[in-house]
Amino acid sequence: MVYAKFELGRSFLVRAEHDSDLVQFVTELAEKEEITVATFTAIGALKRAKLEFYDQEKHEYHEITLDSPQEIASCVGNISVKEGKPFVHAHAVLADKNGNTKAGHLLEGIIFAAEVHLRELKGAKLERKYDKVTGLALWETE
Amino acid sequence: MVYAKFELGRSFLVRAEHDSDLVQFVTELAEKEEITVATFTAIGALKRAKLEFYDQEKHEYHEITLDSPQEIASCVGNISVKEGKPFVHAHAVLADKNGNTKAGHLLEGIIFAAEVHLRELKGAKLERKYDKVTGLALWETE
Amino acid sequence: MVYAKFELGRSFLVRAEHDSDLVQFVTELAEKEEITVATFTAIGALKRAKLEFYDQEKHEYHEITLDSPQEIASCVGNISVKEGKPFVHAHAVLADKNGNTKAGHLLEGIIFAAEVHLRELKGAKLERKYDKVTGLALWETE
Repeated sequence: MVYAKFELGRSFLVRAEHDSDLVQFVTELAEKEEITVATFTAIGALKRAKLEFYDQEKHEYHEITLDSPQEIASCVGNISVKEGKPFVHAHAVLADKNGNTKAGHLLEGIIFAAEVHLRELKGAKLERKYDKVTGLALWETE
Repeated sequence: MVYAKFELGRSFLVRAEHDSDLVQFVTELAEKEEITVATFTAIGALKRAKLEFYDQEKHEYHEITLDSPQEIASCVGNISVKEGKPFVHAHAVLADKNGNTKAGHLLEGIIFAAEVHLRELKGAKLERKYDKVTGLALWETE
Repeated sequence: MVYAKFELGRSFLVRAEHDSDLVQFVTELAEKEEITVATFTAIGALKRAKLEFYDQEKHEYHEITLDSPQEIASCVGNISVKEGKPFVHAHAVLADKNGNTKAGHLLEGIIFAAEVHLRELKGAKLERKYDKVTGLALWETE
C-alpha cells in the first residue's frame, strides 16, 4: 500500500480564465503558488474538450474529441511531482445540451467558465515514477 | 486570474432531509450556520430532478427534466455570495436504474436520501457579479 | 436536519493496489489508520466493476455488472460507523473506451490503477442506523 500523510495547507477558489485550457491553467496556478501536492475539484462549462481512455492491454491512450459545448458536470484531479515539476492529473464528466455524458481522463478542456477549488497538501513528497505493471507514471513515496 | 486564498474552517457531514430540495437544503444550512464561502460534495438518491445546460451562444439555460428516481452518482458544488446572500452553485451526475446517466447544472433535486460534506472556507470575500463575456454571475474578489 | 460538525484531521493520498477491490481497499486503510469518519474522492481505472441502483419503491438494490475496463471518471465517498466498524459508502461514474458512462452506488471495483484522497474528520460520532422511510442505513448523531 503506497500512501503518504499530509496536513491541509492553503485552499484556493479560482475563477478559471475564459478561453484557456483547464489542465494548463491549473498547472500554471501550481507553478505560480509553488504548490507541489494538491487535490482539486471543478465545475463549469467548456467550449470543447479532449478526453482519453487508457487501453489496459496495449498500454496506450485512445483520444475522444468533443467539438461542442459541454457542462463540466464533475472534474476531480490532483497535483504531484513528475520529472521535477508540478503535474496535473484530472478526470472529468462532461454533459451536452441534452444532458448526455462523455467522461474520462481530461487531456484538454477549453474554458467557457469554470470554478476550481484547489486544496494544497503539506508534509510529504509524492512523485510519479514509471510503473511497469500498468505502463503509467504512478505515485512513489520516500 | 481571479482567485482568493482561504483557510479551511468547519466541516459538516449532513444527512439531507427526505423530500426536500437539495439546492434549497444546502442554502438553508448555509444561512443557519452563517457560511458565506464553502464547497461541498454529495452522494445519495433523488426522487426526481431538474438539470440545466447553459447555451454558450444564446446566454440562456435549457432545462432537462428527469421524472424518475436517480442515484446522485456525483454532486460537486460551492457557496459564495450573490446579492448579499449565500448562493449555491452545484453540478450533478445522475444515474437511472440501468446506470445510464444525465448530467449538468443542478436546478432542483428532490431528495430520497443524500449525504453532504460541506467545507467552510474562511479568510476572503468572494462575490458573484455579472460577467458580460459569458452572461453568467461569476466570482470577483476585492 | 441531522448533521455533525468536524475539524479536518489527517489527509491521505493513496495509490490503491493493483487487482484489489476499491471499496475493500479503502475499508482496510480506515481500519489500519483507525479512521472512523472521513470523506474521499478517487480517480483512475478499473478492470471491471459492479454498480448498484436502489429501488426506492421496493427498497432493494439492483445490480449493474460491467465486465470491461473502465475509467473512474469520478468517485465520491464517505466513511462512518456501522455496527461498530468503519463502513465505506461510495458512488462512481465509470467510462468505457468510447467515453460512454455508467454510474451508481459502487459495490465492487477491481483496480487497474487508482488515486485516492482520503480526508479524516474529527470531533463527532456519526453512526449508520436503519431508517424505516428509505429502508437504508442512514446517519444518526448523538
